[in-house]
Amino acid sequence: MNNNRRKFIKSSLSLGAMGMMLPSQITASVAKPEPNISTQILKPEVLFFDINETILDLEPLKKSVNTLLKSNDLGTLWFSTMLQYSFVTSLSNQYFDFGKIGVSALQMVADTNNINITEEQAQNVVKHILNLKPHPDVKEGLQLLKNAGYKMVSFTNSSNFGVQQQLKNASINEFFDDSISVEDFGKFKPDMNVYQWAARKMKTPNNKCLLVAAHGWDIAGALWADWQGAFLRRPGQTLFPLAPKPHFDKANLLELAQELVGLK
Amino acid sequence: MNNNRRKFIKSSLSLGAMGMMLPSQITASVAKPEPNISTQILKPEVLFFDINETILDLEPLKKSVNTLLKSNDLGTLWFSTMLQYSFVTSLSNQYFDFGKIGVSALQMVADTNNINITEEQAQNVVKHILNLKPHPDVKEGLQLLKNAGYKMVSFTNSSNFGVQQQLKNASINEFFDDSISVEDFGKFKPDMNVYQWAARKMKTPNNKCLLVAAHGWDIAGALWADWQGAFLRRPGQTLFPLAPKPHFDKANLLELAQELVGLK
Repeated sequence: MNNNRRKFIKSSLSLGAMGMMLPSQITASVAKPEPNISTQILKPEVLFFDINETILDLEPLKKSVNTLLKSNDLGTLWFSTMLQYSFVTSLSNQYFDFGKIGVSALQMVADTNNINITEEQAQNVVKHILNLKPHPDVKEGLQLLKNAGYKMVSFTNSSNFGVQQQLKNASINEFFDDSISVEDFGKFKPDMNVYQWAARKMKTPNNKCLLVAAHGWDIAGALWADWQGAFLRRPGQTLFPLAPKPHFDKANLLELAQELVGLK
Repeated sequence: MNNNRRKFIKSSLSLGAMGMMLPSQITASVAKPEPNISTQILKPEVLFFDINETILDLEPLKKSVNTLLKSNDLGTLWFSTMLQYSFVTSLSNQYFDFGKIGVSALQMVADTNNINITEEQAQNVVKHILNLKPHPDVKEGLQLLKNAGYKMVSFTNSSNFGVQQQLKNASINEFFDDSISVEDFGKFKPDMNVYQWAARKMKTPNNKCLLVAAHGWDIAGALWADWQGAFLRRPGQTLFPLAPKPHFDKANLLELAQELVGLK
């Protein structure tokens, strides 16, 4: 019995005891080996950049939420709730502006914590999302990739208007060849169809698209859509253990850019 | 200009200033009036009960998570993350056991808060989900509905094995005529197709199905799938402001049962 087989049986038994594993998952875990990073990286043709948290620092926005809600950490629960309800709308074949979902999520977090806020207060805080600063490594990283001739596209759950404001206010719009908002498709990432639509829009095969993102769910969605994935370990972010491993796993954009520039 | 039209223009302008509303949403908000509760309730043919948090009290489980993570509130973020990643898998056409996603979510919350836990510790805490107690109003509420002749079905994101253990350990399995787990369909609620599959399984038109649930996302999903919705205001729970209003909005199951028993 080889090592992998032994490990697989051990893992199945321990999960089986909790009644938490299906035959189909067991098959899947045997049939799909983890990608071997050293052999599977193809030089990507288009780099797609997630914007919120990946490129722009969300901390000041989360702090504004904390200040409004007089809390130390509800800002994190707010952004998680905003994401959760954007996913809910896509699962229900509905679409609302991401900022509008953000306002609703803020009202919900306030409500469930017995804090009174007005809709206007929620809107005033959430609109700070339009004025975020890039992380300190971003401009140098984008410049390196631009100099190396990569085609670069922003690809975000923000609306078209939202992302245009964000990139302009952060003084990084000059780095991007194009800007794709899920608004034009009507589904949020990580709906698989959104990635595949964006790839078609850029006339690029899925496996030559690279998503650069700081969220485990976005990387998981991209990999399951047959894209390449580059995870940036922004503070407070981690990968989803049940998804395949990404092709790149870096501390910041500068480190990623240095590796991408070296690809032939 | 009538009042509704005036309110609509005011609301469009304030949201428009944030660049957060689409023409399609404006149309939708005009075209779809809120359901008029007094005229639209049809006596439901089948009552579908969400289980976790709606019927069974999750607080002891969240407290176990807090104890493991030495925190006052990460239990809430953990359950939110668990839900978020169950939605992610459905959006990506993947499926994993809900308990397994719970273990992964717990590892992620620990990781992003720089807390070291083993996979075994995470599994040992998450498996307490199989041994939750019903909220104090549940047995009397279920008994009233059973006596009134309603067909009653559990409908949960837990696995088949999981929900069977949950209902048995809570001594409430006798109340249910059937048990539907999303495991058999391979998509989590609130994927619209799951509700419609469950309705077909029970040979009931969507608008004669009533979902009883304590989560805003579940009620929103059911309403968008043309079901009826009954929201129970369990502690820490609230409705999604962008979804239609549910047909019933009650403090607990006993209050809901008293109203349902009176329907002709």
